[in-house]
Amino acid sequence: MGTTDHDQFMREAITLSHKNIQEGKGGPFATVIVKNGTVIARGTNLVTSTNDPTAHAEIVAIREACRVLGSFQLDGCDIYTSCEPCPMCLGAIYWARPKSIYFANTRDDAAKIGFDDRTIYDEFARPHNQRKIQMIQLMRDEALVAFREWQEKNDKIPY
Amino acid sequence: MGTTDHDQFMREAITLSHKNIQEGKGGPFATVIVKNGTVIARGTNLVTSTNDPTAHAEIVAIREACRVLGSFQLDGCDIYTSCEPCPMCLGAIYWARPKSIYFANTRDDAAKIGFDDRTIYDEFARPHNQRKIQMIQLMRDEALVAFREWQEKNDKIPY
Repeated sequence: MGTTDHDQFMREAITLSHKNIQEGKGGPFATVIVKNGTVIARGTNLVTSTNDPTAHAEIVAIREACRVLGSFQLDGCDIYTSCEPCPMCLGAIYWARPKSIYFANTRDDAAKIGFDDRTIYDEFARPHNQRKIQMIQLMRDEALVAFREWQEKNDKIPY
Repeated sequence: MGTTDHDQFMREAITLSHKNIQEGKGGPFATVIVKNGTVIARGTNLVTSTNDPTAHAEIVAIREACRVLGSFQLDGCDIYTSCEPCPMCLGAIYWARPKSIYFANTRDDAAKIGFDDRTIYDEFARPHNQRKIQMIQLMRDEALVAFREWQEKNDKIPY
């Protein structure tokens, strides 16, 4: 794809982010997913309108793209998102394994308008006991039994 | 809550993780969300059975708990999860803002049975241009207009 194509897909994401604000559906974020030069899914931030803190634009678009493809993997897909993905969405993208991520605004731009993206990235770099939400480990020995059961399962579907 | 209560909720999560393997719904992971001493939502990993790479146990449970509470915030809730949350799920937890996270297996335990949790955490610490999935910035100036529009919107719902 040439620069023009990339710009065209990102422009669609940016346009959707404006529309999302105007329609009051959620934050100023939108994502477009492209395969073989065609948009296969779109997503906008729906957190406040659906009471779902996981309904960020990238997550909404990834779920829709996977539904369209009938797969839990986005092989050969490109993701165009109007802002650098937050840790939740970047994690989702890694699990979906697309080819590339194109983004426009950054985590710092998001921080400047009141979103926690940068704070959450910073938290990830801290040890468990120094984080804002406390993380406490318990019962690892019991839980490891399930992991061994998974390892020994012959008909499992890896992902 | 005493230690016994914590163990009871974690034991329920571990039991659900076994059940999830046996029913072939997805990976060996489960999550229970508790408010005021009562389980309000449960989730197991449904990635392969629903073709949804975001359907990790924590995400499934958070979405259900928010549906039950009619809120995009998990105020005063505790999360009991059979494995340390991956970056996607930890990000989701930060957005949902519960009180505490209890976990059993670690990211390294998950890595040993074939899951990418540790790899993805490691990727987050690398600069954009050194990551496995390439991240390319474009059209920031155009996208910033939507951020300004959000900032100036008087009737927005922050989250």
